[in-house]
Amino acid sequence: MKRAIFPFLLFLALAGNLLPLNAQQRHEFRVPDLPGFHTLKFDPHLHTVFSDGMVWPTLRVHEAWREDLDAISLTEHIEYRPFRQDVLADHNRAYDIARPVADQLGILLIHGSEITRAMPPGHLNAIFLSDANALDTEDWRDALRQAASQGAFIFWNHPGWDRQQPDTTLWWDEHGWLLKEGLLHGIEVANGWLYSPEALQWCLDHNLTMIGSSDLHNPSSMDYDLSGGQRRSMTLVFARERTASGLQEALRSGRTAVYFKDQLVGRQEHLEPLFRTTLEVERMVRHPNRFTFTLYNPSDIPMELSKDRGNDPKLEFFRQASVPARGYRNLTVYTGDAEGMDFLELKLKVDNWLVAPGEGLPVTLRISPDGRVRPSRSGR
Amino acid sequence: MKRAIFPFLLFLALAGNLLPLNAQQRHEFRVPDLPGFHTLKFDPHLHTVFSDGMVWPTLRVHEAWREDLDAISLTEHIEYRPFRQDVLADHNRAYDIARPVADQLGILLIHGSEITRAMPPGHLNAIFLSDANALDTEDWRDALRQAASQGAFIFWNHPGWDRQQPDTTLWWDEHGWLLKEGLLHGIEVANGWLYSPEALQWCLDHNLTMIGSSDLHNPSSMDYDLSGGQRRSMTLVFARERTASGLQEALRSGRTAVYFKDQLVGRQEHLEPLFRTTLEVERMVRHPNRFTFTLYNPSDIPMELSKDRGNDPKLEFFRQASVPARGYRNLTVYTGDAEGMDFLELKLKVDNWLVAPGEGLPVTLRISPDGRVRPSRSGR
Amino acid sequence: MKRAIFPFLLFLALAGNLLPLNAQQRHEFRVPDLPGFHTLKFDPHLHTVFSDGMVWPTLRVHEAWREDLDAISLTEHIEYRPFRQDVLADHNRAYDIARPVADQLGILLIHGSEITRAMPPGHLNAIFLSDANALDTEDWRDALRQAASQGAFIFWNHPGWDRQQPDTTLWWDEHGWLLKEGLLHGIEVANGWLYSPEALQWCLDHNLTMIGSSDLHNPSSMDYDLSGGQRRSMTLVFARERTASGLQEALRSGRTAVYFKDQLVGRQEHLEPLFRTTLEVERMVRHPNRFTFTLYNPSDIPMELSKDRGNDPKLEFFRQASVPARGYRNLTVYTGDAEGMDFLELKLKVDNWLVAPGEGLPVTLRISPDGRVRPSRSGR
Amino acid sequence: MKRAIFPFLLFLALAGNLLPLNAQQRHEFRVPDLPGFHTLKFDPHLHTVFSDGMVWPTLRVHEAWREDLDAISLTEHIEYRPFRQDVLADHNRAYDIARPVADQLGILLIHGSEITRAMPPGHLNAIFLSDANALDTEDWRDALRQAASQGAFIFWNHPGWDRQQPDTTLWWDEHGWLLKEGLLHGIEVANGWLYSPEALQWCLDHNLTMIGSSDLHNPSSMDYDLSGGQRRSMTLVFARERTASGLQEALRSGRTAVYFKDQLVGRQEHLEPLFRTTLEVERMVRHPNRFTFTLYNPSDIPMELSKDRGNDPKLEFFRQASVPARGYRNLTVYTGDAEGMDFLELKLKVDNWLVAPGEGLPVTLRISPDGRVRPSRSGR
Repeated sequence: MKRAIFPFLLFLALAGNLLPLNAQQRHEFRVPDLPGFHTLKFDPHLHTVFSDGMVWPTLRVHEAWREDLDAISLTEHIEYRPFRQDVLADHNRAYDIARPVADQLGILLIHGSEITRAMPPGHLNAIFLSDANALDTEDWRDALRQAASQGAFIFWNHPGWDRQQPDTTLWWDEHGWLLKEGLLHGIEVANGWLYSPEALQWCLDHNLTMIGSSDLHNPSSMDYDLSGGQRRSMTLVFARERTASGLQEALRSGRTAVYFKDQLVGRQEHLEPLFRTTLEVERMVRHPNRFTFTLYNPSDIPMELSKDRGNDPKLEFFRQASVPARGYRNLTVYTGDAEGMDFLELKLKVDNWLVAPGEGLPVTLRISPDGRVRPSRSGR
Repeated sequence: MKRAIFPFLLFLALAGNLLPLNAQQRHEFRVPDLPGFHTLKFDPHLHTVFSDGMVWPTLRVHEAWREDLDAISLTEHIEYRPFRQDVLADHNRAYDIARPVADQLGILLIHGSEITRAMPPGHLNAIFLSDANALDTEDWRDALRQAASQGAFIFWNHPGWDRQQPDTTLWWDEHGWLLKEGLLHGIEVANGWLYSPEALQWCLDHNLTMIGSSDLHNPSSMDYDLSGGQRRSMTLVFARERTASGLQEALRSGRTAVYFKDQLVGRQEHLEPLFRTTLEVERMVRHPNRFTFTLYNPSDIPMELSKDRGNDPKLEFFRQASVPARGYRNLTVYTGDAEGMDFLELKLKVDNWLVAPGEGLPVTLRISPDGRVRPSRSGR
Repeated sequence: MKRAIFPFLLFLALAGNLLPLNAQQRHEFRVPDLPGFHTLKFDPHLHTVFSDGMVWPTLRVHEAWREDLDAISLTEHIEYRPFRQDVLADHNRAYDIARPVADQLGILLIHGSEITRAMPPGHLNAIFLSDANALDTEDWRDALRQAASQGAFIFWNHPGWDRQQPDTTLWWDEHGWLLKEGLLHGIEVANGWLYSPEALQWCLDHNLTMIGSSDLHNPSSMDYDLSGGQRRSMTLVFARERTASGLQEALRSGRTAVYFKDQLVGRQEHLEPLFRTTLEVERMVRHPNRFTFTLYNPSDIPMELSKDRGNDPKLEFFRQASVPARGYRNLTVYTGDAEGMDFLELKLKVDNWLVAPGEGLPVTLRISPDGRVRPSRSGR
Repeated sequence: MKRAIFPFLLFLALAGNLLPLNAQQRHEFRVPDLPGFHTLKFDPHLHTVFSDGMVWPTLRVHEAWREDLDAISLTEHIEYRPFRQDVLADHNRAYDIARPVADQLGILLIHGSEITRAMPPGHLNAIFLSDANALDTEDWRDALRQAASQGAFIFWNHPGWDRQQPDTTLWWDEHGWLLKEGLLHGIEVANGWLYSPEALQWCLDHNLTMIGSSDLHNPSSMDYDLSGGQRRSMTLVFARERTASGLQEALRSGRTAVYFKDQLVGRQEHLEPLFRTTLEVERMVRHPNRFTFTLYNPSDIPMELSKDRGNDPKLEFFRQASVPARGYRNLTVYTGDAEGMDFLELKLKVDNWLVAPGEGLPVTLRISPDGRVRPSRSGR
């Protein structure tokens, strides 16, 4: 393969535009900031051709940019690299390749890897690594200790995956050991569109951080109908600043919520203020025997409301009402004497914002006909 | 990197399902068979990580299957492989990797490569190769002679690409030489959404085969809104049989049409019978002073009809009418005396089915109120 | 308002094309025929400007045609006609206006009306009427007796509507009386996207026909994202023939299923053979320790499968698997010794095909590696 | 039809919610304000059941709200009312019915009518009427004089409609007379997706206002795929204030542009500053031999750029480049010596922003590597 090299150098210098320089369309994903925090959209579980994924590392950054994410992590399997005959590199290489593009596009790229073992303990992700090669050990305990020694945040992946837990989602002794040793900081409550109520309960019981991820192997546009409005599963991180260390501090502190399939899962202490800062009330009108008003949801996460127990029996209103993403809903509350009321107080559940398995977020909506539910539209 | 190997073999045997086994949705692309032939949908120009594409070779096969293609070719750049530090393989490797998946899914995989040089002669694809490594030569003439000696079909890619033809789409002496030497068999009339009327004219002038391709580097679902109904640019090949050799014979014989962006480009001798076998007339009714009828287009290629010259001046009808993909259009033709007419004869142009630069396909629609335009619905 | 009338008659004769003659696109809704029957898609509950709907009666027929329905009923409120100052007509008028267009487009138009009273008994639809004016009575019992005397099929609308049942979906004495008198033949299990598990249970308990309807007031394209693949709620009727009387016989015999929001509700005796005739198995391959195969769903109703109890413990397979509409899913069943097995028998539930409140359809899938699950593709 | 009336009054009072109170989703249509003006989105040509439209007047207001319009006009045919047997009302009635809903939703409702005559002069809309009944005259000249005496703005509808101009779009003597008499102020350059280059030229020649309209008869969601991103044709009005009189002043002054099918038509004096205020340049980087930068289009109107004549021959750049709606495009301009250049000056045409038949808007893009193309992001 001899070749006159100089003309080719010139050619390659010009050839930058053989790389994809296409028009780019961004699919916004509007989620309001939690008061006092930035809401960062983080997908901490992704694969590329450097393990068993179907795409080049930089593409994951472009996808993230197009889908309005703040942060991603490429978590190649340490132990499973079916393309190693052709793709030859160490365990840091995917990160190294993607990093310059991430910097250019303003995506926070978190260095991570997937420790991929049989159950127990199954698959675990370690993120915020400095050297993924150190995790390539025979015993998984050593791999996790290595990760911990680098200051990693470690979470258990897809505990309900049927290939490893065929019938029931079990907690094994090994997970108890991990917990005791400080080697387990979170669990995937949602992996792709696989939701695990057991994982949610374990996060509540053991004070672990709730994680959502896509675990994409295919291109994201292949698995999700992005232009049709679908979005990948991910973790919403309520961070003090939009930096890698801001992200890490929030994950360590458990300030997350899980987004998947038009649903949220999180702790009541986070979801309640997020709901309050999101929902708006408009055009409230007092009629002789009823109030009419419009709920507006400026975010891209829908709200499925239902009547909760404990409401004033004089108030007659909907049993269920959804406020679609970026959408409005007109509502009526009937009452014997609207004139005599200074405000409405409705006890509701947000059925698709879960705070425990099967439990929607309880909220009290206090609406005054002379004002809005909340003063500003900061959520927009 | 020492490791107990045996448990891992077991693990790998089970791990097949770490690869993408997701639910798959197929986006049908209905194009009727040309009478006497199979209409094969062929994308002869694609890239993977083995040159400067963003995806693994097998993904191109899965994409093809999902998009209802019959055949594809992975045409890596011989001379431009920016990922060679990590992806180390010879020029046949992408084909070898993709082949078993193509066989399994019934996709015809045609072995090809892109000879990637400065203008002249620019970039050329050679397909139906037996060994792409032979094309890695210093002089492009040698590369093309090598391809020809393997029986390759050779076409000129994106002649109007602004990086190589900044202001005007020129035919260079070198292309004349290629033609004379029998080393040029077709030209890309459409590359992605770049259409070249000059290429169309050259195909007509020099009896070259019209080629359409996607030239995808990104995942197809990223560049095309597949679920929204967009489709990649491609070549429709009218083949005697659905085999690689059937494809090759048809390409050699110039029996193709180019599909891009809801448009067709082809020779009148192919587009006219294709139109005739596609369009259906339904529910024709004779009224005292007019005929009403419905045109039905069972294909996924729309038809933009317009009134041509030479119509009977007694017939008063639409100046423009589109029949959408898989859609209907109700039409009325006014005439002084419908009772006295045995049939309607309308001279039309199909403006989005081009037979020359700026020239829509001319058709004569002969409709009888007592029957259909054509007897069968074979086009469905 | 004097005016030369003759030129205007001519003008009006020509003006037919001021009415909408646009291109029309049909959104197919593929549901296989139940063996021995035609599966007719019927929306028995619609409104137009002749009560409180937003559209002209003929538009409902055009919508039905575009959405691939077989039959509709315009069921104007007898007692509630807010536009009566401007729209002046008797209770048969909407039907009379829509009928010629329905005949032309091949839509079965069933004459009906909505008897619109406070709870109890709430709102009831009577369809297959000969004269809706007879239902305009003071006492609702008289209205229903009139309907019955015309041979009407009568069903209770949206029993769980919060405006009439604020907190709980109750069965009132009046409904018992209706049942006893033979004046109640079905209940809406789904009205728009409001699903009532109580209604489903009552249909099972009292042998009533399960009904689904859209209850559209807006244009259907406004409430449903048709081009995005959404479909209105409706009744699937398993009829001996595609006629109004075929429809009526099937409704009387309880041979229906309810479609809403990608779900089906019906009796096991209907859903089980419908499932069996729909699902196909392709490309089954026997490996040393496992079987792989592909499920294909040629219909537009997705299937959410889950593992049921009672499976052979040697078989290790998915806990959940969805087969999307017109889609494929690749699956693997692991077993110690695939060589020794003649067939696979999997006990599954179809979670989105309900046969009782909260109860998915149980099915047994028997797959042989030497053949398909069933011989023919009649479902296509 | 005797009936106890009192219980029914109560029922009707409660029955407000039988009217459509569904969840509402708004499809934003972002168009920047022209500097110094408000850009109002106005559809001045609509039909309801009060002439030959398919919907109730209030629905047109709801549609406008959902599609992010500022203003609409219901322009029923004075002379063509095919539903008059059932819909009995004078020519002001549609406006009167829609007005309260328009006020409530903040839509400017402009009182108008369509004078519907054979050619010549064809169909004309008169808007800003006080009493449409006065237009019901035998002679069309009288109708237009009546309109003018009410201060109406009058425009010629769809001059290229094939039912009235079968082969060629002609200007008749009658239109000359109208112009001379001051009875013609604008022409529809686009009606639905029917574009008339002749109308554009006449507007330029006679200083008439360019109008775009939908002329909807069907529900807008039936004719346009709103959730798929399509939008109706309309007039963009550059008004001093968002009021009916602001709208009228701008129409009288010719400050409009026509939007249809991802294209704009207007006067250069309006489109040029609109383009300048819309387009943004981001991330410009100087390399040794080239500049790279990103164009961002924050609006919902795409920009199809092409290289114009008169560029510095040292600059080598794209022949065509589109900047999609709300989208980005990365671009490279090659130059011998980027170091020595203080700024780039590119002469371009915006091919889908027409300023004359077949003539895209010419623009000069002056980009400095040390700053942005323009200081602020007011367009967002």
